[in-house]
This record gives sequence, C-alpha cells and structure tokens, in this order.
Amino acid sequence: MPSEDTVRKLAEYVKRDHQLLSDLKMLVEQPSVSATGEGLEECANMVSDMLRREGFKVSQHRVDNGAPIILARMETVKPGRRILFYNHYDVQPPDPLSEWRTNPFQLSESDGMLYGRGIADDKGDIAARLAAVRAIRDRLGELPVSITWVIEGEEEVGSTHLESFVLKNAESLKADFCLWESGDISDDGRPNFYLGVKGMLYVELQIKTSEGDRHSMYAPILANPAEKMARLIASLKDERGRVRLKNFYRDVRRPKSSEMRLLRKIRVNMENLRRSLAAYELTARDGVEALEKLVLEPTCNIAGFSSGYQGPGIKTITPSTARVKMDIRLVPDQDPRKILSSLRRHVRGYGRFEIKVHSMCWPCRTSPDNPYVRLSTETGRAVYGAAPNIWLNMYGTGPMFIISRIGVPAAMLSCITHQGSRLHAPNENISLNHLWLAAVHQAAFLDSVSRVGSGPAS
Amino acid sequence: MPSEDTVRKLAEYVKRDHQLLSDLKMLVEQPSVSATGEGLEECANMVSDMLRREGFKVSQHRVDNGAPIILARMETVKPGRRILFYNHYDVQPPDPLSEWRTNPFQLSESDGMLYGRGIADDKGDIAARLAAVRAIRDRLGELPVSITWVIEGEEEVGSTHLESFVLKNAESLKADFCLWESGDISDDGRPNFYLGVKGMLYVELQIKTSEGDRHSMYAPILANPAEKMARLIASLKDERGRVRLKNFYRDVRRPKSSEMRLLRKIRVNMENLRRSLAAYELTARDGVEALEKLVLEPTCNIAGFSSGYQGPGIKTITPSTARVKMDIRLVPDQDPRKILSSLRRHVRGYGRFEIKVHSMCWPCRTSPDNPYVRLSTETGRAVYGAAPNIWLNMYGTGPMFIISRIGVPAAMLSCITHQGSRLHAPNENISLNHLWLAAVHQAAFLDSVSRVGSGPAS
Repeated sequence: MPSEDTVRKLAEYVKRDHQLLSDLKMLVEQPSVSATGEGLEECANMVSDMLRREGFKVSQHRVDNGAPIILARMETVKPGRRILFYNHYDVQPPDPLSEWRTNPFQLSESDGMLYGRGIADDKGDIAARLAAVRAIRDRLGELPVSITWVIEGEEEVGSTHLESFVLKNAESLKADFCLWESGDISDDGRPNFYLGVKGMLYVELQIKTSEGDRHSMYAPILANPAEKMARLIASLKDERGRVRLKNFYRDVRRPKSSEMRLLRKIRVNMENLRRSLAAYELTARDGVEALEKLVLEPTCNIAGFSSGYQGPGIKTITPSTARVKMDIRLVPDQDPRKILSSLRRHVRGYGRFEIKVHSMCWPCRTSPDNPYVRLSTETGRAVYGAAPNIWLNMYGTGPMFIISRIGVPAAMLSCITHQGSRLHAPNENISLNHLWLAAVHQAAFLDSVSRVGSGPAS
Repeated sequence: MPSEDTVRKLAEYVKRDHQLLSDLKMLVEQPSVSATGEGLEECANMVSDMLRREGFKVSQHRVDNGAPIILARMETVKPGRRILFYNHYDVQPPDPLSEWRTNPFQLSESDGMLYGRGIADDKGDIAARLAAVRAIRDRLGELPVSITWVIEGEEEVGSTHLESFVLKNAESLKADFCLWESGDISDDGRPNFYLGVKGMLYVELQIKTSEGDRHSMYAPILANPAEKMARLIASLKDERGRVRLKNFYRDVRRPKSSEMRLLRKIRVNMENLRRSLAAYELTARDGVEALEKLVLEPTCNIAGFSSGYQGPGIKTITPSTARVKMDIRLVPDQDPRKILSSLRRHVRGYGRFEIKVHSMCWPCRTSPDNPYVRLSTETGRAVYGAAPNIWLNMYGTGPMFIISRIGVPAAMLSCITHQGSRLHAPNENISLNHLWLAAVHQAAFLDSVSRVGSGPAS
C-alpha cells in the first residue's frame, strides 16, 4: 500500500496543478464528434501536443480511413514494468442542444462540478492521466514505470479500426497491465473498479412474407410475419427466463469462490436501483440476486420490434415484414461466433429469417488474483479511504477484448464519473474532487507498480 | 327471370341516359372527405337535390355532431314490396396526390374507364341507382316497389353515427330487403354478389414495464415488454394456426350443404391470387381451401407490433413499452363482445396488458334461400349473361349488421367495381360498361321484386 505521506504529497501536487484544468478546458473546447467527423484531426493534434509537452514520444496512425490513433511512449530510466493506457479523444454529438444549461463545448464550473461534452467520457480521464504522470515525476523525480498510451478517436462509433491497429502493432503495445478508461464512484463514495466487460452480439432479424402490406381480409391465407417473429422470440427463453439457444450457457465461466466473495462485498440497494430504473418490476428478489445477475449472467434482450401499422387508430393490414433488434450480452468465456451459429440453427426451425450481424464484441475479465488488481485494491483504499468495490466485470460492453487479444490484462480504475454524470447526454459532468482523486489514484498506482519489481509479477 | 326484352330495353335506356354521367361528374367534382370534414354538407345537399329531382321525399338527419344522414322515400302507386338502399356520399382522402394521373376531383374518361376519387366507392353506385330508378319508371311508367334510401357521410371513418340513426328510425326503415353498396365483377366477367360481411373486433394491446427505455446493460433484472408481448402473441394460436382463445369457435355457424354448394361453384385461381397478393407463401393448398378459409374462417391478425428502437444500426435498450394492433375478423354467429371477454381472460395469464377497443362490428349473413337472393341470381344471369358467384359473405367487414339489427336482410348486388378499381388508393376507377350494367341490374332486380307480390315472400 502507498504510504499516507505519498498519497498526501500526490494530492497536494494535483490540487495545485493548474495544467490539469487548463488541459481539460482546451480539450472540451475542441469539438471532436466521431459521429460527424467534426474536429477529430484537430483534437488528435492537440492531444499529441499535450503528450509531447510531457515528454512522450508520439506518433499518429490510421487504419484505412479511420480517425487518427495516437500512440505515445515514455520509458522509465531503469528497466521495469510497462503499463498500457487506453483512452479515446472522440465524444458523442452534443444534441439535443436545447437541454444543455451551459455551452457543451465550453468548460463550465459550478459548486465544485465541471460541465462539458466529453468531460466524463473521456477527456477528463486523459487530462487526469497527464496530471498523474506529472505528479509521479514530481514526487519521484523520474517515471517509475514505462508507459505506452493508445488514444483512439472512434470509440463512440464502435472502435471500428482499433482491432486492426492493435493486432498490427501487437509488439509495441505489449505491457504488463492495461489501465482501461472508466471506473466510477458509487453513491456511498467508494471507488468502483471493473476487471472486465461483457461481450455482445448485436443482430437484426427480419422476416418478409410478401411484397408490401396487404388488406387483412386476406389474413386467412397469408402468413403473418409479426406472428412468426413473436413465435421465434417466445421460443428463445424458458419460463424462468433462461435462454434456450443450444449450448448458450456451455462456455460460461464459473466464478471462483474468491471471486464470489469479492462480488458479495458489493452492496446493491434494491430500492435505489428500482427508483433509478423507474421499473415497475425487477426480476431479482434482492440486491444479492440483482448483483449476480447483472455481473455474471449473459442476456438475450429485445431492443426493438417493428412490424406493420403503428400509427394512431385503425388500419387493417397483414404486414409484409417484421424486424427485431436484439442485443445478446455475453460473459466470459462465451464466444459471439458460437452464439451466432447457435442462433442461426435455432431460427431455422421458425421460418425464413434473415440475420444481419451489426456487431460482435468478446467478453473480457481479468483475474482478481492478478497482482496489479491486488495492488489497485490497496491504492484504492489508500487514496479513497475506503475499500474499493471490485467488480468482476461491468454490466456493459466495450472493446477491452482487443487488448486482451495481445495478452495484456486490463482493468478500469479511473473513477472519473458518478451516477449523475450523464454520459452521452446533455449536461455531462464530473466532480472536481473526483477528477483530482482519479489523478492521485493513478499516480499512486504507478508508484506501487514500480515497487512490484522487474521480475515476473507474482 | 326478367325477360330478354326487359333487359334490352333497360339497357337501351341506361346507355342513352346522359343524366347518369352528368350526376357522376357533379358528385366526383364535389369533394366530400369524411376524414377531414371537407365538403360533407355540400355533398349531402347535392345528393338530396338529385333525389328530390327524381321525386324522392328527402330529409336530412344528424346524430350528435355527425355528418348529415340523408333519408329519402319514394312510394309505389299500388301497395307492394319495400326495398331499402344503403350508400354513402363520403370518400377517402385523395393522398398521395402525386400518384394520381388525373385530378382526383374531376371525372376523367379514357378507353372506356372512368377515373376520380369516390367513383368506385361509392359515388358511382349512387349515380347508378338513380339511373336504375329512372330506367324502371321509364320502362313501367311507375315505380314497381317502394324505396327507402339511406345515404350516410361517415362510412369511411367507421359509420360512427349510423347505428344510433337506424335504431332511432327503425320503423321508417323497415323493408323487405336491403340493397347494400358494393359487389364487384370478377376477372372472368361474372358478377360477384355478397350476402354478408365479416365482423371485426379491433383492439390495441399495450404493456409498459418501466417509465422510459433503459440501457440494456440492466436487461438481466428488467422485464422486457417486447418479449412479454411476443409470448402473448405466440400463445394466441396453435401450430395449425387455430385461434386458442377459449370458445373462439363455439358460435361459428356451420354452413348448410346448400350454402357449401354455392361456395364450391366459385372458382379461385391460386396462381392469380398469389400474384395479386405478391405473397411468398399462402396457407391454403388450393383454391377450394383458400375460398373456404377466406369466406368461412374467423381470423386473429396482427396488424402492427411496435416496441423499442426501430431505427438504423445499433441501440442497446430494454424498451419500456410494447404495443400490438390486432384485427379479429368474425363470422356468423360470433359476437365481438364475447370474443373480447375471452381475449381479456386469456391475456391475464401473460402479464399486465391494457386492452383498448377501437371498434366492434358484428358479422352478418343473409340466407341464400331468401327469395330476393334467389331473384338476384336470376336477374344476375339475365343481365350479365352468366351465373353470378354467390358469396355467403365478403372476406372484409362493413356495417351491414346495423341494418340486420332492425330485421332487414341485405345483400350486395351492385357490381360497380373490379379487381383493379383501386378503392381508397390513387387512380380510383371503374369501367363505364360496369357502371351501365350495375344500373341495368338494379332496375331489373326492382322489376322482378315487384312480381314477388305483396304477401309474405316465400
């Protein structure tokens, strides 16, 4: 565990570090909307300049016509550990503009909260990591570990070119551990660290039974695509909600008892959960069951169902087409390709459905026994004054598997955001205090890593 | 059967009757769109004037704020039979205007075809009936039967006020038989007469599981309304497509063997049917099965299914709401109220669905043994030179049950339209020849009715 003294000194440095807010202001004021392409080049250059200013060696890369991917490196003086950082400089579009109380592309402060597009996702984290590097060098006079930093510009549109880039540059990206973006602060002030993400298979099913909708007086002799789709959907789960695709659960990794113990330490307040979801019913009896389901269970979710007439009043047609969008979230060690094959086989029994695959993302989980994860528990406790919640994986999905492809374990330890951060929404915000703590925690983590030594981590 | 001479003289009169096309022109050029209210008063007055011109006593009636309902009467000199006519002067909106090749509110003629909004549904029939009255009076010097004529202005929006009007005026609407609107000419030139219509229960089902859509990372603990709806829909039919609502088929009237014989005389060409429906599959093996299903079977049809995200690409949400529109077409003697009760009971087992009832329409069928129906077979053969197809009922639905409520049997013998008439669509059209034949046939029918005598029809 880092000493109280180290943490205090890091914190003192960070709070005096005017560069942190000045970087954040510049980043927020430079639009970089990957959905429209606005300002991506400019933002990539700005981030590269900031990295060079701190002493990183910086190069920019493109795969096909993708947004620039920034690759930066800084070496420790004495041979030691190498940490990989992952971030993205692109942001979501600011719409709807009318719902912003401030200019989304200006840094605004009010009562210790900072507002602006990208401040929580992911520009705050870039600025905090730059501050962490400054703080640790100020404290130790040198960088205690080598750092490789990948910052892409397409995360908000599906990290389209990241995998090619990572596989092509596997050698130079090799590292002992990866600090992924994200992490957050729970309502009771504890940091939430996440050791992985769920995977996802996102598909669209379509069935077409005629060219164009028909007068429903012909219903007695027409196949109804909405009905065929409903029968298919109904067949996907049993009465307890278990997915009935063949071998769906076969590859699900059983958590070890030590992992279950970590999970059980997390407190979920069902009443808060129900309120925040505004759900009339939850399919979990209590917080323990909710937590297990959210973290450990794969799902097969209908995201959209569309067929025939959906306007007001009466229209009597037999639809020609039915469409369903479905996100199937996967847990380790499920493979979206196997799940897709199983879905294809299952669907064949219900009609002539077309299956369009929109995306595939592999689940990913780093062992809590990983020495860097163990370290983070200690640094978390030292910096936040409370034991962090160690989540085996988020409920959500991200491209973390791309890093795991080259054998680098990853975790999310940044904790920039909180429940009300409004990621992707108007009035995106973080707390100035959380920003400082994120910088301090990442500096403390780098400091601790340097003390693991240069042999194989145990 | 009317004599060849009678038919020839009626035909000669009708073809020389310039008033027929002049009336039709005036009617088409007077917009009367019940969906928007445009021109309803003006059209009601125009029709009333035409009726008065022919010698009818005319009054206009309103129920609540409904469009004027025209009630016209003309008495035969010697006491005899009374025939009720039903028509409507309102039309569907002309949109999309860009798809019309002519002005929808102008009568256009080209190669023996007449074009204009309402020409097939139902202004052509009003003009033809006026011509039939003129022709029969010209032929016989007097009206052979008494006529009561109801012409409403809300048929295209569900005949909202017709039932109240009919029940209130039951005494003055009493008649031996009702000539409903409609009927058509089949591809092989035979007239199609319809002795009834299907009923309909149109409902909207909704289930809501939360306030607003939620990020689908919470799917493991959220109820999914699209899935609940799919399970309900899948439960509504068995594998052979039979509706599983309790007692759904209990009240279905078994056709007599004489009725089945009539049905079997109708030829359905499966290849034409498949082509006209542009359907990839039909759920009937051959024309005989298709005909039986279309005429005799009730259906439970999904007209629309809507839930969650339906746009392009990926959105990962668990929807808050799922909605289904459903038309359940009924055959004699099913009762939409009983079917609704059965649906309510069934639905209870699948979740908390709201059921909104959009409309209820009773099925209706006149016996082919009815003496006026028998007459129509003879007049049909005499006028069209071929035995008419006698349909026990249409596949579609209409408010004919309202007339049956006051004990008047009805049938559709007008035959203004053909397969390509494009009712409710751009370029609505009829053949001039079919218009003439409809007038001749209705005059021949009135002539024959007068010879049934004034005692109870046998």
